[in-house]
Amino acid sequence: MELLERAILENGRVLPGDVLKVDGFLNHQIDVQLLSKMGKFVYERFSDCKVDKILTVEASGIAFACLTAQFFCCPVVYAKKSRTSNLSKDCYSSTVRSYTHNNVNDILVSKNYLKAGENVLIVDDFLATGEAMNGLIDLVGQAGGNVVGVVSAIEKGYQKGGDRLREKGYDVLSLAIIDKMDENGIVFRKQ
Amino acid sequence: MELLERAILENGRVLPGDVLKVDGFLNHQIDVQLLSKMGKFVYERFSDCKVDKILTVEASGIAFACLTAQFFCCPVVYAKKSRTSNLSKDCYSSTVRSYTHNNVNDILVSKNYLKAGENVLIVDDFLATGEAMNGLIDLVGQAGGNVVGVVSAIEKGYQKGGDRLREKGYDVLSLAIIDKMDENGIVFRKQ
Repeated sequence: MELLERAILENGRVLPGDVLKVDGFLNHQIDVQLLSKMGKFVYERFSDCKVDKILTVEASGIAFACLTAQFFCCPVVYAKKSRTSNLSKDCYSSTVRSYTHNNVNDILVSKNYLKAGENVLIVDDFLATGEAMNGLIDLVGQAGGNVVGVVSAIEKGYQKGGDRLREKGYDVLSLAIIDKMDENGIVFRKQ
Repeated sequence: MELLERAILENGRVLPGDVLKVDGFLNHQIDVQLLSKMGKFVYERFSDCKVDKILTVEASGIAFACLTAQFFCCPVVYAKKSRTSNLSKDCYSSTVRSYTHNNVNDILVSKNYLKAGENVLIVDDFLATGEAMNGLIDLVGQAGGNVVGVVSAIEKGYQKGGDRLREKGYDVLSLAIIDKMDENGIVFRKQ
């Protein structure tokens, strides 16, 4: 999606440690109008899928998921990263390694909010190794739902998590796929 | 706001420990259409304030903040609860006690995303003792911005945090104010 690629080039920064810093519009400050246009783009691709629910994970997936869900007129469910006192004990859970934060988290969704037979679109801000997406797919599977698509705003294509999901047969949409990035610049995959 | 009060009565549950469980539509599963209507309601109240930015805190404030910001055509900034590897070292920070989670967190915002002279509307899902709101107000103050309003979806009026903010002169809008809740039911404050 050209608009997002332009935002990445204009406002993103490549930092040491394979970090793409896009906290000016995606995951700290949020350009709500841009994310809403991205949500419309996602809707146009998946509008024939009868999406019952969008599933994401806290915290950085929530904005994109909500602004996308508006077009589908469906609810969002976000998986939690800790077992807070408010979370029901009756949860689906999956273990996810975060390379960004260098830790391992269980992600949890109350059994009340994922059901058998539901068509679920998975949405997150980043897709790199695919750990978080695989965790979310696992949660949908535990509930007996159907993953109709896997959507990321930005895919780090060179980390191969997206391609592994495509090989498994998932319908993966990333609005920008980065095939290479370093101090000299960012190369997007042609889509 | 009658629509929200009805959602609370129909889908909320009062649990021991002063917990109002509204995770079916507000902070785990999100009724995006309801929150968008709530956002419009907020806009109608603050539309003359020249809001430059909406400030909230991860994770449960993000959905309501983004769906509100659409009407103001302004960005959202969400304060983070941990110093992740992606967060700039140059941050405003404030210490906040959470009674729900029984812990103390620093909340942080990069100095890039709060600026002197900005008109900031603070938005969160809950207002109880006011700890989180006071932390967010503190961050805006450190940046030299102006708090034009403090908005919560649900205020636990009997915990007095909202009234203390009103006494200090803040323009506080809560879409539903609960004056009493127990196993017998929920009493809303007339507004």
